[in-house]
Amino acid sequence: MYEQKLAELKLQLPAPPAPNGAYTPAVIHNGLIYIAGQLSRDAGNIVVQGRAGETADLAAAQAAAELCALRALSCLRGALGSLDRVERILKVNGYVHAAPAFQAHAAVLDAASNLLIAVFGEQGRHVRTSVGVASLPGGGLVEIDVVAAVRA
Amino acid sequence: MYEQKLAELKLQLPAPPAPNGAYTPAVIHNGLIYIAGQLSRDAGNIVVQGRAGETADLAAAQAAAELCALRALSCLRGALGSLDRVERILKVNGYVHAAPAFQAHAAVLDAASNLLIAVFGEQGRHVRTSVGVASLPGGGLVEIDVVAAVRA
Amino acid sequence: MYEQKLAELKLQLPAPPAPNGAYTPAVIHNGLIYIAGQLSRDAGNIVVQGRAGETADLAAAQAAAELCALRALSCLRGALGSLDRVERILKVNGYVHAAPAFQAHAAVLDAASNLLIAVFGEQGRHVRTSVGVASLPGGGLVEIDVVAAVRA
Repeated sequence: MYEQKLAELKLQLPAPPAPNGAYTPAVIHNGLIYIAGQLSRDAGNIVVQGRAGETADLAAAQAAAELCALRALSCLRGALGSLDRVERILKVNGYVHAAPAFQAHAAVLDAASNLLIAVFGEQGRHVRTSVGVASLPGGGLVEIDVVAAVRA
Repeated sequence: MYEQKLAELKLQLPAPPAPNGAYTPAVIHNGLIYIAGQLSRDAGNIVVQGRAGETADLAAAQAAAELCALRALSCLRGALGSLDRVERILKVNGYVHAAPAFQAHAAVLDAASNLLIAVFGEQGRHVRTSVGVASLPGGGLVEIDVVAAVRA
Repeated sequence: MYEQKLAELKLQLPAPPAPNGAYTPAVIHNGLIYIAGQLSRDAGNIVVQGRAGETADLAAAQAAAELCALRALSCLRGALGSLDRVERILKVNGYVHAAPAFQAHAAVLDAASNLLIAVFGEQGRHVRTSVGVASLPGGGLVEIDVVAAVRA
């Protein structure tokens, strides 16, 4: 179902990301899966850098948010074996490296949220918290993390 | 009980907020309710803007934090039908749009936490993480999100 | 087991921190324990201040992250009676008060993560989200919060 949807959408997932530090990409416990913060990284695994409202415009930040979502999907598949084991996307936290005057965080993170909804449909609808941060690891432009419910 | 307490406190909740993006205000799963990040918005649903330590003083930031808490309560009621179905407020994340030299984040978020405790009593006591962020959606001054346990 | 490991590592935990505001250091619910955001504080409970990439170098920020982890351990012990009741560290959120050009957030938070792994071994491996924030309560340099699973 969700794997098939992904194929229909012609979305390519990157390889499951190796953690960039002393942590693990995903933890499954008691019916929930927690995904580590996923930085915007391109197909070559290079961090997409920038600061929304300064060195990155809205479209660039939205593209970066999509990359974060694709990496989160890759973590889900890597840990669960298949996206079809996802029961529901519960929560997304979105962090935009943003100038103080930047205000379009919701539009940036919508690019990530819409991708999740495109794949999971109604089960992809989640709560979300979006904030602008002073900096991100590696000079990243966007980072998201995800909590999802898992089928038994 | 909690609805009655709210009435005794003469607190008026805003209408359940529509999400400002591709997400949903609340998700209920397995006995927990997750509330999306709630921006400081006034009775007219206009974002209360500002930067603590610069364009907003402590009292203004505290008032903004209260508005966030009222909106979180409205989300809880909207999703659960009644605040009386809340079993316990578990966690609050608080984000203050703050100048680098600002240090009174705890005092700002106490305004939100105290409101939750006023309504839910001991069941309103929660863990909290408070940070200062570079910017918030719509130029907002404060944003909080909430995780709570729900009665069966 | 974990208490013994802590002794072997000659790690001294600070007294369980009093909350700096209207919240509680730990909430236990349905097999999970949520730890409130722990600021970097020294043995005298004074906030370790600074801004990574400006007034604090990497080593100072890593030392601050370790202090946060020790305080989180103290919260876990304070709420559970013993670290041996921890089943698994699930998630760590790490907030570094950082200059816009700072990029080594992962290296900073590794100091906290490695301490947790040193104590809990494989059960200490967690997902993590690391971001750079504009400011922290009390001028703090690092703050972390933790979610863990608890033995029945």
